[in-house]
Amino acid sequence: MQLPKGFRFAGVHCGLRSSEPGRLDLALIVSDMPAAAAGVFTQNRVAAAPVHVCKERLPRNDARGIVICSGNANACTGEQGMSDARRMTALAAREIGCTPEQMLVASTGVIGRFLPMDVFETGIPAGAKKLGSDLAAFEAAATAILTTDTRIKTASRQVGPYVVAGFAKGAAMIGPNMATMLGFVLTDAPIRADDLQSILRGAVETSFNCISVEGHTSTNDTVLILANGTGSPLAELAAFSIAVKELCEELARGIASDAEGANHLVTIDVAGCRSDADAKKIAKTVAESALVKSAIYGADPNWGRFVSAAGYAGVEFEETDLSCWMGPFELYRAGVPLPFDPKSASAYLKDNREVHLRLVLTLGIGKCRFYTCDLTPEYVRLNADYTT
Amino acid sequence: MQLPKGFRFAGVHCGLRSSEPGRLDLALIVSDMPAAAAGVFTQNRVAAAPVHVCKERLPRNDARGIVICSGNANACTGEQGMSDARRMTALAAREIGCTPEQMLVASTGVIGRFLPMDVFETGIPAGAKKLGSDLAAFEAAATAILTTDTRIKTASRQVGPYVVAGFAKGAAMIGPNMATMLGFVLTDAPIRADDLQSILRGAVETSFNCISVEGHTSTNDTVLILANGTGSPLAELAAFSIAVKELCEELARGIASDAEGANHLVTIDVAGCRSDADAKKIAKTVAESALVKSAIYGADPNWGRFVSAAGYAGVEFEETDLSCWMGPFELYRAGVPLPFDPKSASAYLKDNREVHLRLVLTLGIGKCRFYTCDLTPEYVRLNADYTT
Repeated sequence: MQLPKGFRFAGVHCGLRSSEPGRLDLALIVSDMPAAAAGVFTQNRVAAAPVHVCKERLPRNDARGIVICSGNANACTGEQGMSDARRMTALAAREIGCTPEQMLVASTGVIGRFLPMDVFETGIPAGAKKLGSDLAAFEAAATAILTTDTRIKTASRQVGPYVVAGFAKGAAMIGPNMATMLGFVLTDAPIRADDLQSILRGAVETSFNCISVEGHTSTNDTVLILANGTGSPLAELAAFSIAVKELCEELARGIASDAEGANHLVTIDVAGCRSDADAKKIAKTVAESALVKSAIYGADPNWGRFVSAAGYAGVEFEETDLSCWMGPFELYRAGVPLPFDPKSASAYLKDNREVHLRLVLTLGIGKCRFYTCDLTPEYVRLNADYTT
Repeated sequence: MQLPKGFRFAGVHCGLRSSEPGRLDLALIVSDMPAAAAGVFTQNRVAAAPVHVCKERLPRNDARGIVICSGNANACTGEQGMSDARRMTALAAREIGCTPEQMLVASTGVIGRFLPMDVFETGIPAGAKKLGSDLAAFEAAATAILTTDTRIKTASRQVGPYVVAGFAKGAAMIGPNMATMLGFVLTDAPIRADDLQSILRGAVETSFNCISVEGHTSTNDTVLILANGTGSPLAELAAFSIAVKELCEELARGIASDAEGANHLVTIDVAGCRSDADAKKIAKTVAESALVKSAIYGADPNWGRFVSAAGYAGVEFEETDLSCWMGPFELYRAGVPLPFDPKSASAYLKDNREVHLRLVLTLGIGKCRFYTCDLTPEYVRLNADYTT
C-alpha cells in the first residue's frame, strides 16, 4: 500500500482503556508542512466536543495534524468536554511545534463520561516520539482508532504523481464500546481547502452516508481530509475526486462488512427512481429494517419484507412499478410474486457471506448502492450490556 | 367486560393454518342492522388487497360486518389478491344476507402468497353458524386474528347508555408469522360515518400510531370502527371520542407489551417541544433505536444512547435544551451528565417489566407518549427463519 509523502503516523496506548493494558487508544497524524484541510461531520443535534472543535477550525489551509482517542467519545460532556478537546490539540501542537488551532481532534467511545485528561499529558508526548512515515506507523494509527472493530480498514489510490490514502473505523453506533464512524484521508496532492471540502462532501455522500448498521446516527461521526502538496494547486480535479470517492467507498464497505455481530455484508441496489435521493431513501429503509436483517441472518428469502420496507420509505410509487431480485433470483415482478425455489434461494443466503438485493422501479433513472449487514442475536448480546 | 348491543362474533378454524389443526384463523364480526363504518389504514405504498377493498367501500352508513383471516396477509398478490379479498366478502355476505359491498375484510400473515380460497368456501359458512353475542364469541374472534401474539387484546368502555368495545392484534411487522397491526372497534352508539372517521383518525394518532416494535410499517395495518346505534345520531361527541381514544390506547399498549420476544414494555415520554409532532418524532426515534432497545434488554442504563437518538430525530434543538430521566433517575440535565448510581439504575431496568424513559426539552409545550419494547436475541431468532 502506498502512502502519501510528508505525513507521519503513530498509534500508542495512552491509558484511556485502562482495563486493556497495551491496547492502542491514541492515534496521531502529522503533516510535515501546512496542509489544506476539510471535514464532514455528524448531523446529530447532540454532537460531541471534538466535532464542535473541528467545525470551528475548518476549512483551513495550514493544518498540521489530527489527534484521535478511542474508548471515550467526549460527547454529552458540556463545557468541560470542549475544554478537554481543545487541551488534546494543545498538547499535540506543543510536540509538533504549531498552534493548537492547526491541530484537529476526534474521539470515539462511550458517551457521557469526562475524559481522564491526565493520560494525555504523558500519552501525547509518547505518541509524538513514535511518529513514523512507514506502513507500520500508518497501521498503528489505524489500529489505535478501533473500538469493537475486528480489523483495520485502510485503502490507498494513486492519482498521477500523487497518493491518497486513508483509514476508518466503525459504522453508525454499531457497538457498545464505541459511538462513531471515523475516517481520515490524506494526500500529497496540492489542493485548496475549499476544493477539498466539496470533493470530500461528494465522496461521503456515496460512501460513508450509504452504510448503515442500525441507523443510529452517532454523536461523533467525523471524516477529515488533509492535502499537503506544495506548488500550484491542481486545476483539473476530476481524477482526484474519483480517487477520493473510490477510496471512501472502499473504507465504507469495509465498515459495513465488519459491523458488530454481522455474518453477512448486504449490498442493496435500488434503481429506476425519479431521483438518486428517492433511491437512497428506499435503500436506507430496506437496509435499516430489523425484519429484513433478521431474515438475512436466518437465510430466509422472505422477500415480502424487502418489498414492504420499500413501501414505507416515503417515496411515492405504485406496487406495479416495483420488481425485486435477491442475488440471481427474481422474486417479484411489477407487483406480482414469481415462483422460485425457496431451498435454492435460502442456500444463496446461507452460502455467501456477501449477498445482494436489488429493487427496480420504472419511474426514472435515479439509483443508489447502499451497504448494510444482517442482524444477529450476537449484535443484541454485544449491545445489551456495556456501561454497567 | 361489556359488549355493544346488536353485534355477533365468531372465531373458527377454516384451515388457512393447515399446519396447526384447530387453531382459530377466521373471525367474523356481524352487525344485526346496518352500521356506520370508518377505517384508518397503513401508509405503506405496498398495501395489501384487503386494505384496497376496504378503502373502496369506506366510509359508508350501511356496513354489516367484517371478515378477517390470519396466517396469510394477501399482500403483494396483484389482481388475484384483489379478487380473492372481494370473494371473501361475497361469501360472508351470502351467509349474512347483504351485499358484498356491505362487508369489510382484513388479513394478516405472510406476504406474497395467494390465498387458498377453497378453505373459505366451507370456513365462512361454518363461522356464520357459530356467530354469538356473548363474551365467549367475542373472545373467539379476538383469538382468531392473532398470529405470534401470546394473548388476546380486548377493551371496553361505557359512554352513557352506550358501549364501545374492541380487540386488536400485533404491532408493526413484529413477527415471522404475521405482518400487521389490526384493530376493530364496535359500538351501539348512533354516530354518522363521517363523524366516526374523524373520531377514529384522532384516536389512532395517539394510540396505534404511538407504538413501535421495530418500525417496519406493515402492508396490512387496518383499524375499523362500526357504529350500529339507531335513532338520531349523537350530537355531543366529546365523551364518545374520549372513550374511543382511551380504548385504542389500551389496545395499543397491550400490543407493545406483547411484542415478539419482548421482556420489557417501555413508555417514552417526550415533553417541552415546539409541537406535539416534534415530540413524536423524538419519541419514535428513541423507540426505534436498536441500541436503546438492546440496552434496556441488558438492563444497561446507557443514557448516551437515549440522548443521541433524540439528536438525530430531525428536530432542531441545542444540547443544553435537553434533559433525560430513566424511571426515578435523572441522568442528564441541560446538556451535562449527572452523577448516578449505575447499580441502582441497572436494578431498576432489571426488576421492572414496565420501564419509563423521559426526555424533556425547553422549547415549548409539545409532548408525546410512545410505547415500545426491548430488543432481545429471541426477537432475532424468531424472525430469522420463517418462510423456508
